[in-house]
Amino acid sequence: GGGGELKCGADLVLITGANRGLGLEMVKQMVDTQSPLTPLSVLFACCRDPDGPRAEELRALAKKHPDIIKVISEQVGSLLGEKGLNLVINNAAILINSTLVDSTPEDMAKTFNTNVIGPMSVIQEFLPYLRAAAKNSEVPGMSCRKAAVVNVSSIGSFNMSLCLNVFLSYCLQAALNMLNACAAFEFQKEEILFTVLHPGWVRTDMGTADAPIDCEESIQGVLQVINSMSDKHHGVLTDYEGQTINW
Amino acid sequence: GGGGELKCGADLVLITGANRGLGLEMVKQMVDTQSPLTPLSVLFACCRDPDGPRAEELRALAKKHPDIIKVISEQVGSLLGEKGLNLVINNAAILINSTLVDSTPEDMAKTFNTNVIGPMSVIQEFLPYLRAAAKNSEVPGMSCRKAAVVNVSSIGSFNMSLCLNVFLSYCLQAALNMLNACAAFEFQKEEILFTVLHPGWVRTDMGTADAPIDCEESIQGVLQVINSMSDKHHGVLTDYEGQTINW
Ligand SMILES: NC(=O)c1ccc[n+]([C@@H]2O[C@H](COP(=O)([O-])OP(=O)(O)OC[C@H]3O[C@@H](n4cnc5c(N)ncnc54)[C@H](OP(=O)(O)O)[C@@H]3O)[C@@H](O)[C@H]2O)c1
Ligand SMILES: NC(=O)c1ccc[n+]([C@@H]2O[C@H](COP(=O)([O-])OP(=O)(O)OC[C@H]3O[C@@H](n4cnc5c(N)ncnc54)[C@H](OP(=O)(O)O)[C@@H]3O)[C@@H](O)[C@H]2O)c1
Repeated sequence: GGGGELKCGADLVLITGANRGLGLEMVKQMVDTQSPLTPLSVLFACCRDPDGPRAEELRALAKKHPDIIKVISEQVGSLLGEKGLNLVINNAAILINSTLVDSTPEDMAKTFNTNVIGPMSVIQEFLPYLRAAAKNSEVPGMSCRKAAVVNVSSIGSFNMSLCLNVFLSYCLQAALNMLNACAAFEFQKEEILFTVLHPGWVRTDMGTADAPIDCEESIQGVLQVINSMSDKHHGVLTDYEGQTINW
Repeated sequence: GGGGELKCGADLVLITGANRGLGLEMVKQMVDTQSPLTPLSVLFACCRDPDGPRAEELRALAKKHPDIIKVISEQVGSLLGEKGLNLVINNAAILINSTLVDSTPEDMAKTFNTNVIGPMSVIQEFLPYLRAAAKNSEVPGMSCRKAAVVNVSSIGSFNMSLCLNVFLSYCLQAALNMLNACAAFEFQKEEILFTVLHPGWVRTDMGTADAPIDCEESIQGVLQVINSMSDKHHGVLTDYEGQTINW
């Protein structure tokens, strides 16, 4: 971390899809002084339309924490100093409820663009800042206080007998998990941590009202996992309760 | 199978990317009477330009076996009768040698279209014929003699310490593996077998001259595996030596 006042927590954090669902809940809990990740110095809360009606709740939250939360859609490069960026959370994603029989190439391309190309582009864009943060850190090993990318994803392979519906979108979560594995391999030496987090099945627009847990419970777990991440999470898939998932 | 003369082997087979590399070798070995899959009645050898210079060797082979091999690029629906199609091999694919740092969205989209959307579309297109074959069969259980889709892919997750280069294209092989798992789930009841086959690292244009094995060795193994496929290969990844790969 940067300032001497920081006990734990990542200092400079960026999160995508911050205007609703799990992303918004992460912003909420991250600025709560009881959260394992606080205090942060800056949280870049990204959404595609920061001034639009869908970001109202996020803007209200940012108003209460004007020093910490920056609501943005654009490149933040110019806002970032030489301290770089400690933690990037790729959270934005879509889920299209179609199976093999009724999936169209357009559905698949849209999901691919959002759920795979999106995270890839975010990583490429902020890599210089993650590198800067990793270099500036004097602590050996990997953590979210140094330089880390958390890719939020669902489980990539699964016990088929437990599933009622197998949406083809899950293919692209598997691609994201593999992208994470590739990135973990590529950035091992530079000590930039790459990990995948499965938030559980959660009551959001995506998860529907049928999901067993709420955002608060999921994100409490997620932030605890993020806070405790170390080399052993590198290239690995973990759920919100901290359990490693094999895929 | 259809005709009473068939001892084993799939009767009506379709393969994509049949004009070179592993696809061409499969065509060669499938029409060889010593191959575990012969005799076939018809082999639809698909390639994108059946009349072009890149399909010369395939055309020459088809000339020697005019009753069996049909070289085509277009929809084969009109050629298929009520017996349907027993075996579809999704073999066509590309590999772009770029890593996370230098992959472009265009590279990724091209690979996604060829390696994921391609197989998906082939499955969707021939599903009615696979269903017909499954229904016509009086044998319980799944096999390549009844109705099966073999997706040729690389391993979707891997021991990172063994890799020198981690191409981001592998992400999309993971997506194909997951697509196979989804399809396996969806078509379990209809007894259409869906499996993934890893051919090994093979000396082809894609595999390069550095690969440890040649097409003949890889495809001998691949055809043996295809021939012996049963319910236990459904939704699973197997290599050319018949070993199950966890991913
Ligand atoms: N909920 C679950 O049960 C569950 C389970 C497994 C994994 N996950 C993962 O958890 C993450 C968050 O899911 P959620 O449940 O919070 O979903 P959600 O309620 O549907 O919210 C999705 C978020 O992603 C943003 N987004 C979608 N497409 C975008 C695009 N093309 N560009 C920019 N932003 C985009 C949305 O912004 P807009 O408001 O502008 O659309 C929204 O902020 C996702 O990665 C999801 O795959 C969720
Ligand atoms: N070789 C290996 O070491 C290795 C390892 C793991 C997995 N595999 C898998 O094995 C399969 C065959 O690979 P290979 O080594 O034989 O590759 P290859 O020698 O490069 O041949 C690729 C084949 O796919 C066709 N193809 C590519 N893009 C296409 C498109 N857009 N539309 C139609 N056809 C297209 C090519 O046709 P054109 O001639 O028209 O381009 C060619 O017939 C692939 O699925 C590959 O992923 C290979």
